[in-house]
Amino acid sequence: MPVSATALAHTNPALVQTIQIELGDRSYPIMIGSGVLQSPSSWSGLPRAATAVVVSNLTVAPLYLAAVKDALAPHYARVLEVVLPDGEAHKDWHSLNTVFDHLLAQACDRRTVLFALGGGVIGDLTGFAAACYMRGVPFVQVPTTLLAQVDSSVGGKTAVNHPLGKNMIGAFHQPVRVLCDLDVLRTLPDREFSAGLAEVIKYGPIADAEFLDWIEAQLPALMAREPQALLHAVRRSCEIKAWVVGQDERESGLRAILNFGHTFGHAIEAGLGYGEWLHGEAVGCGMVLAAELSHRLGLMPAAFVTRLRGLVERAGLPVRAPDLGVQRYLEWMRVDKKAEGGEIRFVVIEALGRAGLRSAPDALVGEVLAAHTG
Amino acid sequence: MPVSATALAHTNPALVQTIQIELGDRSYPIMIGSGVLQSPSSWSGLPRAATAVVVSNLTVAPLYLAAVKDALAPHYARVLEVVLPDGEAHKDWHSLNTVFDHLLAQACDRRTVLFALGGGVIGDLTGFAAACYMRGVPFVQVPTTLLAQVDSSVGGKTAVNHPLGKNMIGAFHQPVRVLCDLDVLRTLPDREFSAGLAEVIKYGPIADAEFLDWIEAQLPALMAREPQALLHAVRRSCEIKAWVVGQDERESGLRAILNFGHTFGHAIEAGLGYGEWLHGEAVGCGMVLAAELSHRLGLMPAAFVTRLRGLVERAGLPVRAPDLGVQRYLEWMRVDKKAEGGEIRFVVIEALGRAGLRSAPDALVGEVLAAHTG
Repeated sequence: MPVSATALAHTNPALVQTIQIELGDRSYPIMIGSGVLQSPSSWSGLPRAATAVVVSNLTVAPLYLAAVKDALAPHYARVLEVVLPDGEAHKDWHSLNTVFDHLLAQACDRRTVLFALGGGVIGDLTGFAAACYMRGVPFVQVPTTLLAQVDSSVGGKTAVNHPLGKNMIGAFHQPVRVLCDLDVLRTLPDREFSAGLAEVIKYGPIADAEFLDWIEAQLPALMAREPQALLHAVRRSCEIKAWVVGQDERESGLRAILNFGHTFGHAIEAGLGYGEWLHGEAVGCGMVLAAELSHRLGLMPAAFVTRLRGLVERAGLPVRAPDLGVQRYLEWMRVDKKAEGGEIRFVVIEALGRAGLRSAPDALVGEVLAAHTG
Repeated sequence: MPVSATALAHTNPALVQTIQIELGDRSYPIMIGSGVLQSPSSWSGLPRAATAVVVSNLTVAPLYLAAVKDALAPHYARVLEVVLPDGEAHKDWHSLNTVFDHLLAQACDRRTVLFALGGGVIGDLTGFAAACYMRGVPFVQVPTTLLAQVDSSVGGKTAVNHPLGKNMIGAFHQPVRVLCDLDVLRTLPDREFSAGLAEVIKYGPIADAEFLDWIEAQLPALMAREPQALLHAVRRSCEIKAWVVGQDERESGLRAILNFGHTFGHAIEAGLGYGEWLHGEAVGCGMVLAAELSHRLGLMPAAFVTRLRGLVERAGLPVRAPDLGVQRYLEWMRVDKKAEGGEIRFVVIEALGRAGLRSAPDALVGEVLAAHTG
């Protein structure tokens, strides 16, 4: 049953803030706040089409799919849904084809607008489906996890995993809008919330030393999911991401710094099998390893490793790397997308708030792993 | 065994002509002529990388793969190959994944350059693989069929087929260079050559009435594959395509005119099962149907239908549509990418050398089919 605009208008506009991603004719707003999903303005002014398709998963759909479909009903003649299984293990060809099968079986044309309602897996997969369906249709990100709100839903990186590597098959395809409703974070399990904090923490060392101080001071408020703390964390994370993506949309340089902790992290995820650790957990531990590498390359003092490790641990994230063996770590990291000519390139911290790309001898990587494994 | 530049330098530079596709930082040259594959300049100045991967098929590889790999050897530390089965039926997910599996198993990084050595199927599929592998790597088109040289290799449309529709999953991804060697057309079977002529003929009615006159006059020379006739046909076709693509890279308007004959044609291909008719055969017959529709919409005289039908027939192409039944034609055409809100949009000829998009009542489409079926 469609809900009228009046019935939905109980949001507090003072709490909704908008950040613009500046990418010329691909620019778009990120709307952040409480009640975003229930605000009629979140859903107006989107590309006109006969059909909207909401892609979600079995965990999120029971919570928010009906409300989103109701909100879309006034704007589209048909509002369809595709509900996929939950989890990183399903971010694959098979799920992607499930989406395509639905779109074609329902004769969706190339104006069709897709809506990604879920976490990073749904966002990345739906975005890639939108990039490829009839060579590109518009899509809207409706991230329901902290991780997706502060990282994966912003910036247009879309992908699916391949058995030989994470996010190996994908596209740069910007959404037309990102809707970050802080209220939905209330239903997020603690483990998922902590995983999102890993990406929030990331922005401090790579771009904003003051933000790192703020996160350390406000971690209890964040863990308690206090609205004002969440708003600042999500907004500042999105601001930094918007600034980086605006300068380097297709990761020819600067953008790679957003991958701090991800080179080690991807190896952990792939090495254990996707879904064993959450992406954010692997990134949390990966940041500790990357901090250690920054230290051993002579860039940062040992105290930085201790500080970051403490913060990651307090955020409820693992800080000991699984014992895959150094060789397997190196093998997985050599298929990292930043690698060139077989040489792994790590995002390292050069000073608090500034990151860069460096390679490192295998032996040094082995020492880094030895210091934080098991 | 790598062949030295000196040994390869037996081409006649006077016969190699270059057309530039103007797309800002995605601009690229089309090199057309005899001996293009053997000219060292064809292979120099491409993006630098450790690895080149030539994607070809079981028909083309025995003829030209060794020569292309030799030509690439001086420029890349590794020159790998992926050889797929031949035919439109293999332009699918499975073949695409075969390419990805090879690239990842060989640890190809995101600078890797792909080379599409083959016809339209190899070009479209390799281009889409390049669009998606690690979110985009550069690729070079080396079209070995007339159809690919005059149409599919130019303009950056890449795709694979889905069981429910042709080219439904794809991307706009421009090649960094197109190498059209007219010599390779000598080994093309007559049926494939005729299929290519369909796309050459297409450019006349949609954009250049004089070119249509020229094709009619020179058809015997073209069918005899005389070098000067081929050079003009390929060059003029590429010029027209370059002009259209330069104005409308992502088919928001004008570019759709390149689909003259393709709406009916795709329905024929899909309805019969991919590979039963060659794409160019379906386009040839589809142009006759689209000409008939243009006539019945009051845009063109009956003499135009007769003229185009005669030319298509003389080019060795079918002019009678298979009897799929009007309903099945309509169903397939409704999933055409140009359709919007369930309304099929046909490319019609408004005047010789000028095309436009129109919809038509189902009954009229039925009359068009009835006039040319069986």
